[in-house]
Amino acid sequence: MKTLLIIGIGAGNPDYITMQAVKALNRTDVFFLMDKGQSKDALIDLRREICERYIEQPGYRFVEAQSPERLRGAEVDYQASVAELNRDKQRTFERLIDEELADGETGAFLAWGDPALYDSTIRILQAILASGRCTFEFEVIPGITSVQALAAQHKVPLNRIGRSVEITTGRRLAAGQVSDADSLVVMLDAEDSYRQVADQDLEIYWGAYLGTPEEILIAGRLKDVAGQIQQVRKAARQANGWIMDTYLLRKPED
Amino acid sequence: MKTLLIIGIGAGNPDYITMQAVKALNRTDVFFLMDKGQSKDALIDLRREICERYIEQPGYRFVEAQSPERLRGAEVDYQASVAELNRDKQRTFERLIDEELADGETGAFLAWGDPALYDSTIRILQAILASGRCTFEFEVIPGITSVQALAAQHKVPLNRIGRSVEITTGRRLAAGQVSDADSLVVMLDAEDSYRQVADQDLEIYWGAYLGTPEEILIAGRLKDVAGQIQQVRKAARQANGWIMDTYLLRKPED
Repeated sequence: MKTLLIIGIGAGNPDYITMQAVKALNRTDVFFLMDKGQSKDALIDLRREICERYIEQPGYRFVEAQSPERLRGAEVDYQASVAELNRDKQRTFERLIDEELADGETGAFLAWGDPALYDSTIRILQAILASGRCTFEFEVIPGITSVQALAAQHKVPLNRIGRSVEITTGRRLAAGQVSDADSLVVMLDAEDSYRQVADQDLEIYWGAYLGTPEEILIAGRLKDVAGQIQQVRKAARQANGWIMDTYLLRKPED
Repeated sequence: MKTLLIIGIGAGNPDYITMQAVKALNRTDVFFLMDKGQSKDALIDLRREICERYIEQPGYRFVEAQSPERLRGAEVDYQASVAELNRDKQRTFERLIDEELADGETGAFLAWGDPALYDSTIRILQAILASGRCTFEFEVIPGITSVQALAAQHKVPLNRIGRSVEITTGRRLAAGQVSDADSLVVMLDAEDSYRQVADQDLEIYWGAYLGTPEEILIAGRLKDVAGQIQQVRKAARQANGWIMDTYLLRKPED
């Protein structure tokens, strides 16, 4: 039998790693690194750094694979393009499991943040098992998400007392596909979608590169700071070549 | 200056603790343990166990305080009773910081799960600072929540592709105060509120005592397993004297 681990390595700060994840790293023979092109090199490097820092016996190996790219463009249906991307990834994962992992070995995928939130690895491994094309056991190890890093760094609760929190995407916010939850956390926003709701009376807690030395935090009334966030975000993206940001929008306390 | 740390210790499994939390435990002089009565003794014990396991220099001390109780009953307004409880807690925390922590020392509150989700410690420390009655620096250290433990143990993503996740309370689910998010995570449910939506076509992923040796997992179509969950939950609560459970409700894939 082969074993696969999906290890949440936390968002940004190598100290966000859990003891459970450290133990999982130390059980792993093969780490599968999915290369997403130059702009994400920093993320691959952080994965290698985490392995070097926390693994005691250097008997492990890395296998890199080209990560398929999602089709982009105004005419592309988002959900269909993600489903197609996942089918491509599934074929890549099947090949890796088949060719790069021996019977009795343990392979691991290192997921940024938590594997259960906006990450496709669990879904893909379940699909492979359901297809019957490979057999393996697998485990999921949770990790600290950028949502939690955001709240911790701003020192704010995610929820109002007894209220709900909605976690959603920039795409849904821009499309008006969000509920009226008191607290809304937005991830994966490539388009400064907070601008779409800047006319509403909202507070924003924004963070980029959370948990890393490049971390930037901005908080305030959305209408007061939206312009500043947009400028800072654009400049940081140019300076670093990439950006990952997350924010909490919430209605002011009654 | 005094320093306070709000340390998320994760939900249940001592291995859920992060390296950041371990470092924070090792900087702490005084741990404040809030005693919630006999039924929660297991939680206090887990906090002591975590300190013993991860702290290298045994120079720290524990200070226990009686945690105020929330008023309960059908005629009590929930939000007002939580606000009143938080004012009581604030007075208790002010006394602890004043009397039990010397200048230059570091005190810590250990929060189950993550301090940013359905935990009042951040809100109370911010209120104390705003009142000007004590001065201190404070830091928040995120921890793995039962929501993440639930998804990891069931090996399911929290979100559908490109969709939202709403995190809410059993109270709000029972009152019909939830949105139509594809994925709904319910916490703090003392009343088996999933029964209120058992007529809808939903899948449930339910977990109790997540991450502990007593962990129980049940998954299936809600209408098929709601009765089983209710029975198992009642029996486990009687056997252990307390229960903490969390569940994910979601619409079947299109």
